[in-house]
Amino acid sequence: MSNWLLPESLADILPAEARRIEELRRGLLDLYRTYGFELVAPPLVEYIESLLSGTGADLNLRTCKLIDQVSGRTLGVRADMTPQVSRIDAHLLNREGVTRLCYCGTVLHARPAGLLSDRELLQIGAEIFGHSGVEADIEVIELALASVKRAGVQHARVDLNHPGVLRSIIDSDPALADFADRIHELLGTKDVPGLTELGTQISGVQTGSIQALIQLASLYGTTGVITKARSVLPALPALHAALDDLDVLIAALPGHEFSIDLADMGSGYGYHSGVVFSIYAHGWHDALVRGGRYDGVGRAFGRSRPATGFSLDLRKLSSGLPAAPVAKAIRAPWGTDAALVDALCKLRAAGEIVVQMLPGQLQWLDEFTVDRELVPDGGTWKVRAIA
Amino acid sequence: MSNWLLPESLADILPAEARRIEELRRGLLDLYRTYGFELVAPPLVEYIESLLSGTGADLNLRTCKLIDQVSGRTLGVRADMTPQVSRIDAHLLNREGVTRLCYCGTVLHARPAGLLSDRELLQIGAEIFGHSGVEADIEVIELALASVKRAGVQHARVDLNHPGVLRSIIDSDPALADFADRIHELLGTKDVPGLTELGTQISGVQTGSIQALIQLASLYGTTGVITKARSVLPALPALHAALDDLDVLIAALPGHEFSIDLADMGSGYGYHSGVVFSIYAHGWHDALVRGGRYDGVGRAFGRSRPATGFSLDLRKLSSGLPAAPVAKAIRAPWGTDAALVDALCKLRAAGEIVVQMLPGQLQWLDEFTVDRELVPDGGTWKVRAIA
Repeated sequence: MSNWLLPESLADILPAEARRIEELRRGLLDLYRTYGFELVAPPLVEYIESLLSGTGADLNLRTCKLIDQVSGRTLGVRADMTPQVSRIDAHLLNREGVTRLCYCGTVLHARPAGLLSDRELLQIGAEIFGHSGVEADIEVIELALASVKRAGVQHARVDLNHPGVLRSIIDSDPALADFADRIHELLGTKDVPGLTELGTQISGVQTGSIQALIQLASLYGTTGVITKARSVLPALPALHAALDDLDVLIAALPGHEFSIDLADMGSGYGYHSGVVFSIYAHGWHDALVRGGRYDGVGRAFGRSRPATGFSLDLRKLSSGLPAAPVAKAIRAPWGTDAALVDALCKLRAAGEIVVQMLPGQLQWLDEFTVDRELVPDGGTWKVRAIA
Repeated sequence: MSNWLLPESLADILPAEARRIEELRRGLLDLYRTYGFELVAPPLVEYIESLLSGTGADLNLRTCKLIDQVSGRTLGVRADMTPQVSRIDAHLLNREGVTRLCYCGTVLHARPAGLLSDRELLQIGAEIFGHSGVEADIEVIELALASVKRAGVQHARVDLNHPGVLRSIIDSDPALADFADRIHELLGTKDVPGLTELGTQISGVQTGSIQALIQLASLYGTTGVITKARSVLPALPALHAALDDLDVLIAALPGHEFSIDLADMGSGYGYHSGVVFSIYAHGWHDALVRGGRYDGVGRAFGRSRPATGFSLDLRKLSSGLPAAPVAKAIRAPWGTDAALVDALCKLRAAGEIVVQMLPGQLQWLDEFTVDRELVPDGGTWKVRAIA
């Protein structure tokens, strides 16, 4: 009865949108190629142990599972391609030094990530493996910004963070070690009373470290936050190294808008080890791009490597852009005589859209505006405007 | 321990191959666009009832199933995109008249189709809906041939068939109706003794119809087979109409090699209603392209429509092509000064691959041959060959 109904949060992409997504895909993959990123394509399904290894550990509830009819083992449909690309770098390419990889493919979520989210995403991304310096982070953020610019997004803003700031405060006070998750949670909501109360509950905690956490809760805003952080946070070497990274990064990307939040680590706190960023823009209620550094990725695959990269959903990107312009097409009569076939071939080879009218075909296609027609002209054929 | 191992018949596609597949994808989608085919993208998973409707009925054992966490119903990962595209034509676009649609996406098979087959395919295809004439078949076969030509395939051969020939013989003799599957099977292996024996087992069968089936078993070879068929097969109107279609089609596509097999309907006998074809070429042990007419598609979605089209697996297509040429790249030093950034931008906008060497990066990428370098030249930067 309802064979045409689709499951919730899954949709057909119709012509104009599908073509625009295709063009975004091409534009971005070509952009990544000009930076020397090599394209890889991991499989849609893998053993669940591989997909949930390393950075994939958080993906269990989001991953659709099925039984492999060949091995009897459980397979997962990938919910994120980054762990797969790490596996390729760690094990398959097995290169020393720097490897730049990019990818684009369908990922599936068992449940939509939010009320307005789809369960099928077209994830595209780029990763630099094998380089632990801030230079790689700069390249990756610059490429992410170039991606949204290439797509025509206006007024993008980069939200920056560095988990090294919080981590060095926690590491500086052994009493805090067992409370890292709770601190992370309180800082995520800027809950200063909660942090103060936590300070009274932890036996042996240093007053300075709780004060630092409370300061951290207010360290968000424009790039001036970094200067303020230097004066109000403890003079820990790892903390200042993290702030230095942020300074270098912002200086290397002039002309872009940055926003800093040293308190909120987002969902990547568990594995991010360096600069973390998100790109926001008008027209999208959520982050358009997410990325950051996660050194040690690939350890689960037997080869620990520094890594920094980003990804985005091309379908989400396309959905917020203005409607794509309608393509112009030429109509031609049906026929197989050599002169007509030759004219069709030449026009199509030049990139023109030429629709041959099948006998009985009357109407135009929705995606194209037919503004010209191919008509006989002596023994040959010519294109003329439709009156 | 073995997190990097992939399930059988599933593979990572590494850089050179992945890029070539991407380029084939683009070339073919652009080709289809110049013929006026509109791109659509159905979802990776759907309710199993939708996927197995109509022409999808044979796909049950090939389709991976999972439980939808939102609805509790069974979903299938598509094993073929054609039923999905039929659904879009029948229900979503809901256009009268001719609709040309194309698509490209990942499909998954629960088990590999053959010993050498992968379970993940990148299926690309094109379909004309709403036209029952042979003109649409001609356009589709011409486009399929243009596809393999665009991919660089040499010496393609089209195998043609028309199930109307066999069907009209079966329809002409009521005694044969219950034996259609058996006849199909015997003809598939050209089993003349089996056909003769079957003739003795069917009560009330006409001698002429068994003789026609036996003749059919030898009607394969070059296009002369069609002429022979006219003289040795019964003068049934539907049978001759099918032969006429084949004649018109071959005449409309001069310069291509055709092979006819009026006995073997292949796997599509169940639903194909007109010309059926496969394209073979040296370098591929199996058909590269399969297509044909299957009118009545969409009936399961509430709107019966004539349809003809084809599809192919881009991964299989790529695997048989000669190795892709290595791309040339320019190396550049790391740095963020404005003149360097400007030089990088301009080169990349012009399509050049420029790899910035991160501090400590020593070696080249496998995919690219670095033959030039970007060097400072006064206050500006220039490209020079590497000695």
